[in-house]
Amino acid sequence: MIDLKPLLAQAEAYERELPPLPATLTAPAGPAFAAWIDHTLLKPEATAEQVKTLCAEAREHRFATVCVNPAYVPLAAGLLRGARVGVCSVVSFPLGAHLPAQKAEEARLVIESGATEIDMVMNIGAMKGGAYELVYEDVKAVAEVCHRHKVLLKVILEMCYLTQREKILACLLSKQAGADFVKTSTGFGPGGATVEDVALMRRVVGMEVGVKAAGGIRTFKDALAMVGAGANRLGTSVGVAILQEARTAL
Amino acid sequence: MIDLKPLLAQAEAYERELPPLPATLTAPAGPAFAAWIDHTLLKPEATAEQVKTLCAEAREHRFATVCVNPAYVPLAAGLLRGARVGVCSVVSFPLGAHLPAQKAEEARLVIESGATEIDMVMNIGAMKGGAYELVYEDVKAVAEVCHRHKVLLKVILEMCYLTQREKILACLLSKQAGADFVKTSTGFGPGGATVEDVALMRRVVGMEVGVKAAGGIRTFKDALAMVGAGANRLGTSVGVAILQEARTAL
Repeated sequence: MIDLKPLLAQAEAYERELPPLPATLTAPAGPAFAAWIDHTLLKPEATAEQVKTLCAEAREHRFATVCVNPAYVPLAAGLLRGARVGVCSVVSFPLGAHLPAQKAEEARLVIESGATEIDMVMNIGAMKGGAYELVYEDVKAVAEVCHRHKVLLKVILEMCYLTQREKILACLLSKQAGADFVKTSTGFGPGGATVEDVALMRRVVGMEVGVKAAGGIRTFKDALAMVGAGANRLGTSVGVAILQEARTAL
Repeated sequence: MIDLKPLLAQAEAYERELPPLPATLTAPAGPAFAAWIDHTLLKPEATAEQVKTLCAEAREHRFATVCVNPAYVPLAAGLLRGARVGVCSVVSFPLGAHLPAQKAEEARLVIESGATEIDMVMNIGAMKGGAYELVYEDVKAVAEVCHRHKVLLKVILEMCYLTQREKILACLLSKQAGADFVKTSTGFGPGGATVEDVALMRRVVGMEVGVKAAGGIRTFKDALAMVGAGANRLGTSVGVAILQEARTAL
């Protein structure tokens, strides 16, 4: 059980005034910018051929990971064996409406298939309904599975559904429950990453937890804006085009 | 392993000419129309309070089921104990991009929580990529879990992504693999139920398998059009309003 009182008090204080933005992050320049990008293909209609192309691109450009649905994790893990590219997959995606044990079991299966990073969706309905213990237990259950297997856990907060107070609290609960990153959006909700949300997340979690921006990042300019606001990982399906722009900008 | 040849030949023949629409179904009139409706709340931001209201409405109007996300199955099953209302939940929803074993495990967990009907999403990427054995194995794996527990299985084909040939083949593969119903849409994709798709599904599966229309059914008129085309189950979040109209129409 978590003692919610200090977290709720902190959320209230942060709602009045957020902590300052910590020291700016310095993204790798030029083609090395790829190391901050999850090369992403989560469309339900994606075929095995498209996943193969994604993996080849990731290997060539050295993206941080490929991010694919659970069905494609064995394929991606096989194709990327020996490459310095991780395999990221998603849990309870994109609705987040599973119970802690259900999410933990899905995470376990996906990790067994070869995932090295997990992006789980927070229980959004629990957050909206004030069931904060459940939000915490949910992240904690998946974090335990991930960390037992040395897998990185990102928690997708789906910020577009949340009030200012809920955004702050979602960050605090995720950090407390063992998230390695908080992430803005699934890309399937009514809103994607915003500079304001990324800045809020970085201010709340500080420098011990990562911030991933995802949803609607289409250009190098978008990417730089997110990094400027505090993101140190980006999820996008147009990583190759963004890298092309990054090279030109050198 | 499934022998695909006869199914592919049948799909080709059906693409040239569909079988005739079987005898028209007669929906229960007036308030009894509720028995053909899954009273649905799948929004990711739905709270426990909203699910409680949904269950109270289902009990009052005698809907076929409440259809909720896995996180709310224990709550709904508890609230509906002793009522003649089923608990429907979803598997691999709404993307369908899990492997057969992952879907079977999710189904098992959701059934253990109290679900009496399962709406699973077909592997859409496998269908688009021509991996038809995988589409079949996927449905079969979940059907085995469902039928072992006397749970009804509906397979969501997400018709908006499919070509005419793929629509026909998805129906044939689902029927062959043990689906009790085929269902048009998740309600989260770019398109919902259409009268044309419902008619196609009914013509292809005949009368031994049910047809559920879901996605965008907002009025009693919409509902009647779907039934006229061959649907015998409807998924909608506005069931109470539709019943109100059904009463007036008596």
